[in-house]
Amino acid sequence: MLSKAQIKYIQSLQHKKNRQKFGQFVAEGDKIVQELMGATNIVKAVYASPEWLAGRQIPAGVTAEAVAPEVLKQLSSLSTPNQALALADIPALPPLRLEGAVSIALDTVQDPGNVGTIIRIADWFGIRQIICTPESADAYNAKTIQATMGSMLRVPVYVQSLTALLQEHKHIPSYAATLHGSNIVHTPTIKEGIILIGNESRGLSEEVLALCSHRITIPRLGHAESLNAAVATGIICGRLLI
Amino acid sequence: MLSKAQIKYIQSLQHKKNRQKFGQFVAEGDKIVQELMGATNIVKAVYASPEWLAGRQIPAGVTAEAVAPEVLKQLSSLSTPNQALALADIPALPPLRLEGAVSIALDTVQDPGNVGTIIRIADWFGIRQIICTPESADAYNAKTIQATMGSMLRVPVYVQSLTALLQEHKHIPSYAATLHGSNIVHTPTIKEGIILIGNESRGLSEEVLALCSHRITIPRLGHAESLNAAVATGIICGRLLI
Repeated sequence: MLSKAQIKYIQSLQHKKNRQKFGQFVAEGDKIVQELMGATNIVKAVYASPEWLAGRQIPAGVTAEAVAPEVLKQLSSLSTPNQALALADIPALPPLRLEGAVSIALDTVQDPGNVGTIIRIADWFGIRQIICTPESADAYNAKTIQATMGSMLRVPVYVQSLTALLQEHKHIPSYAATLHGSNIVHTPTIKEGIILIGNESRGLSEEVLALCSHRITIPRLGHAESLNAAVATGIICGRLLI
Repeated sequence: MLSKAQIKYIQSLQHKKNRQKFGQFVAEGDKIVQELMGATNIVKAVYASPEWLAGRQIPAGVTAEAVAPEVLKQLSSLSTPNQALALADIPALPPLRLEGAVSIALDTVQDPGNVGTIIRIADWFGIRQIICTPESADAYNAKTIQATMGSMLRVPVYVQSLTALLQEHKHIPSYAATLHGSNIVHTPTIKEGIILIGNESRGLSEEVLALCSHRITIPRLGHAESLNAAVATGIICGRLLI
């Protein structure tokens, strides 16, 4: 049975600062828990309904514990708790390498659903990595993980200052998504570069914008003021990568 | 002061069947309430914090009432209640006309956030209208309205069977978004047509698919199993409309 202290520890991982302190996170949901157990060795424990656990193969080294619905609800950070959740180590990142591939950089994209959806887009288009400012939604937030639909396993997310990144990589083309740049329709497809997406309401910061080699814009035929950040990322990838 | 019956009535509009019965809906949030009051005459009442109402111009025919935070919380269907909400009539729809324009059809897209984001995309790209199956998320759901970011004012949404629609409009090209169709990169841009988007997990139904004149696919360069429905809609519009 889960002790009170264990429940408290798992709940504490809803906060980014505790995830960073302990190097662990919680993934919620049938599919992601299965995928994490199957494709990685980072899962330490699985807490799930007895029905979910019944007849399921649990890898060596993973503690599996059947818990009651009310405990799952206590453990979950989502409004609709799932049948299963996994406690896992945050994996080490491979070295960041921008050369010869396309990367996405997020300048304070704050909605976890947007960041998760962008990770999923990156995985679809074979983007090597995502770089986020520290103010962006955390890649290990439960809502981010949910929105990635498993893609979190395949796209490493780095957290660092984008001004420093751009200053250190002036030889890599950088494409800033803005409202007043060159029409993406006339931008040739790319094999190497950084696509930069800004905050949901403010867009890219002036400092970041000033360091980008290209400014690109999705032409507007109608009247909406803006596009959702994840949708804009998808449209840009759909023009620059294919 | 709002009576208990009024509070109950507003809460009842969280359910689609009551919105249909009474022909009214509730819009939540500073921006959308302002836009609805400014651009339409469908708003009947505004319930907001005293701070929100202070010095604000309220059009003739609109009842404005200052309410306490706890009442706003009671009235709201969102987990984070807003400063203002509006009670409004569901506007009458102009006649559906597919000729000479691009439309989007949603086959049981069930997430209100996705439907709202697709309305916003449609508004950006100047799409004339959206047609949804009755099983799709409702356009007047509070979460849908929130995700449209005001675009609900400009894009009419019709609810009807897509098989009937396609059978009656065989002369209009229809583009089904599928996983195994022609590469969208090789699809010429269109000035007339219906872009069809399927359910988040099942995609388009067989019956709808069988009636479409074209099947189109976003090429996958990486490993994600699928794309979010709204993102896929955006990418397709970003290739077929611009």
